[in-house]
Amino acid sequence: MPFLKEQYGNPSSIHRYGRLAQKAINKARKQIAYLINADPSEILFTSGGTESNNTALYGIAKKNLGSRIITSSIEHDAILEPCKKLEKEGFDIIYLPVNNYGLIDPLILKDNLTENTSIVSIMFGNNEVGTVEPISDFAKICREQKIPFHTDAVQATGKIPIDVKKLGIDLLSISSHKINGPKGIGALYIRKGISIDPIILGGGQENGLRSGTENVANIVGFGKACELSRINLLENISRMKELRNYISNKIIQEIPKVILNGHPELRLPNNIHLTFLGVNGEDLLIKLDENEIAASTGSACSVQIQKASHVLQAMGFSHEQITGSLRLTIGISNNFEEMDKTVEILKNVIKELRSVSPFKEKYSF
Amino acid sequence: MPFLKEQYGNPSSIHRYGRLAQKAINKARKQIAYLINADPSEILFTSGGTESNNTALYGIAKKNLGSRIITSSIEHDAILEPCKKLEKEGFDIIYLPVNNYGLIDPLILKDNLTENTSIVSIMFGNNEVGTVEPISDFAKICREQKIPFHTDAVQATGKIPIDVKKLGIDLLSISSHKINGPKGIGALYIRKGISIDPIILGGGQENGLRSGTENVANIVGFGKACELSRINLLENISRMKELRNYISNKIIQEIPKVILNGHPELRLPNNIHLTFLGVNGEDLLIKLDENEIAASTGSACSVQIQKASHVLQAMGFSHEQITGSLRLTIGISNNFEEMDKTVEILKNVIKELRSVSPFKEKYSF
Repeated sequence: MPFLKEQYGNPSSIHRYGRLAQKAINKARKQIAYLINADPSEILFTSGGTESNNTALYGIAKKNLGSRIITSSIEHDAILEPCKKLEKEGFDIIYLPVNNYGLIDPLILKDNLTENTSIVSIMFGNNEVGTVEPISDFAKICREQKIPFHTDAVQATGKIPIDVKKLGIDLLSISSHKINGPKGIGALYIRKGISIDPIILGGGQENGLRSGTENVANIVGFGKACELSRINLLENISRMKELRNYISNKIIQEIPKVILNGHPELRLPNNIHLTFLGVNGEDLLIKLDENEIAASTGSACSVQIQKASHVLQAMGFSHEQITGSLRLTIGISNNFEEMDKTVEILKNVIKELRSVSPFKEKYSF
Repeated sequence: MPFLKEQYGNPSSIHRYGRLAQKAINKARKQIAYLINADPSEILFTSGGTESNNTALYGIAKKNLGSRIITSSIEHDAILEPCKKLEKEGFDIIYLPVNNYGLIDPLILKDNLTENTSIVSIMFGNNEVGTVEPISDFAKICREQKIPFHTDAVQATGKIPIDVKKLGIDLLSISSHKINGPKGIGALYIRKGISIDPIILGGGQENGLRSGTENVANIVGFGKACELSRINLLENISRMKELRNYISNKIIQEIPKVILNGHPELRLPNNIHLTFLGVNGEDLLIKLDENEIAASTGSACSVQIQKASHVLQAMGFSHEQITGSLRLTIGISNNFEEMDKTVEILKNVIKELRSVSPFKEKYSF
C-alpha cells in the first residue's frame, strides 16, 4: 500500500523518494531469488509470465546463432505463439510429443538436440492437466550440449520446491498472480553467464534488459508473495495435496463414469483434471458458476477463442473426452468443507446434465 | 483495492469472478478513451508508456512496407532506443532537429516525408524542457500523405486538452503514473483502421494485440485517474499554471543569473526548466533533496547512466548551460506555500554552491 500512496517515487530518481522505491525493489528482488535459490542479480522483472516467456524465447533466439528451437506440444500459448512467429522468421521449431499422461520423454529431447539449437523451452508443470515434467533430466541433456534450457514455471512455482542451481536451469519464468501476488508482474530468472536481447527498449531500467518505470507496488507485492510462498512452501504443498486427494477420491467414489486425467503421481499438488463422460464441460462450468464454484475447462488464459485444448489433443484424448473435461484448482485458503460442498454440487449438476445428454444411451446413465 | 482482494478474478475466466474483472476493465477502457475523445475499442492496455512507444514503432514498422521512420532529436529514450534497433535492422531513421526552444518545424517534417515512410513519431510535450510541439500540423501533413502519425503523449496527457479526432492523431501513448495513477500500466491509442503487429504473444488478450493476464487492479486505478483527470482538467491546468508562473517569476526576481529554458508560452503547465549559471545541477539536486525537495536534472528515467541531456544538446545548449540545469515539476497537490519555501531553499543552496564554484570569478558571484 505505501508504494501506491506516500512512497510514490520513481526508482530512477536520485532524490529520497526515488531511493526508497529503489530500495523496495532491491528487497523484492531478493525475496524472489530466494524462492528459487537464485542470486538477486539473476532476476529480471517483467509485466508477467507471458512477457517472461516471450523474453526468454526472443531474447535467446535473436542472440544465439542456432536456427532450431525445441519445445513441447503442451506448452502455454505464451510459448507456442512466439514459436509460431519465429517459425515464420525461418526458425525450425520442434514440438516434442507427450504420452497419455502429458509426459515428455527426455530421450526424445536428446534425439532432437542438434548443435544448431538456439534454445530448449519445456514447461515445468502443465497448466491444464497438472503433469510435472522431468525438468532436471532436460536441463542435464541441454547442459551437456551447452544449449540454454528455459522452463515456464508459472504453474509450478510455489507448488513444488524449485532450486534452479540443483536443477541446472538456465532461464525460468514466474508469474506473481499464480502465487497469490498482484497481477501484471512477473520475473524471468536468467542464470549468470546467459545473455539475452531485450524486447522492450528505453530508459535502460533492469540493466537495460527491460525498460520502463518499474511497477514498484506490484513488485513489492510480488516479493512478499514469494517470501510467504517460500516460508510456507512445504506446509502449503501438503495441505493442497491433502485437499486434492480428498476431493479426487470423493468424486471418484460418488460420481460414476469419471476419469482422472494426467499423471497420478507426477503432478502439481493443487490440480485436478477430470473427464465426466457424456457431459459438456462448458455447460458444467456455467452450472458450477451458478453454484459459486469457479472452475475451468482447458486453459483459462484465452477465453476469447473457444477451441479444443491442444494439450488434451497432444495427450491423445478423443473429442468426447476433451469436451467432458474440467479443471479444478485448490487454493491455499480452501478447506475441507468447501471440498464436500463442491462434490455435492458436482453430483447434482452432473446428474442433471447427463439426464439430457446425447450420450445418455451410450453410457446408460 | 477490491481487485487486489476479493474481486481477484482472471478476466479471461468464464465464471463470475472472471466476468467481474472483465467488466471493470471495460469500464476503465471507457474512462481512458473519454479523456482523449477516442472510442474504447481504440484503447490498448500496455505495461506503461515505454511499452506503448515500443508497440507503436515496432507494431507499425513491421507491418508497413516503408523503410523510413521519422522522429525528432528530443524524444524520450523509449522512442530513440527502438529507433536505434530498427536502424540496425536496415531502417532509415530521420531525427528532425529542433530550435533553441525545442520546437520542431512542420515544414522540415514535410520536406523529409517520403512515400516509403513507415511511421512518423513526434512527442507531444517534452519531458525535460516542457516544450509542446505543433502536433495538429504534424498530423495534418502525415494524413495528407497517408503516413501513420504517432505521438508520445506521456507528459502531455492530463496537462493539455487532447482530442485525438480533432488533432488527427493515429497512435498516441499514455502512461498512468504521469496522471497520478498506479505505475506499471499504460495505454496505446490506435485509431480504427490502423493495424499493428503485436510485440508480446500468448493467450490473445487485448484482441491478440497484447497477450498476458490483464493487470486488473492497475487498469482500474488507471481508469479512475483518467476520469479524474478529465473532470478536473481545466481546473488542474489553471492551478498548475498559476503555481508555475508564481514560482518562475519569484526565482527570476530573487536569484541572479538564471535562465528560463524552453518556450515561454508553448509549454506544459507543470514544467519549469532552468539554468543556474555556475552551478552543477547534480550538486543542486542533492542539496535540494537534503531539504526535502524532489527535483531532477534532465530526465529522471535513466538514472543508471549519467549522461549529458540529448534534449538540451539538440537545443544547442553549451556544456555549461546543460550542467547548471534543473527541472522542477508542479503536482496537482502542490500549493503556494511550498513554492515560497522552494524559492527560499533554492536561494540559499545556490548561494552556497556558487561560493565554491569554479565559475565564481567569471560571473563575479
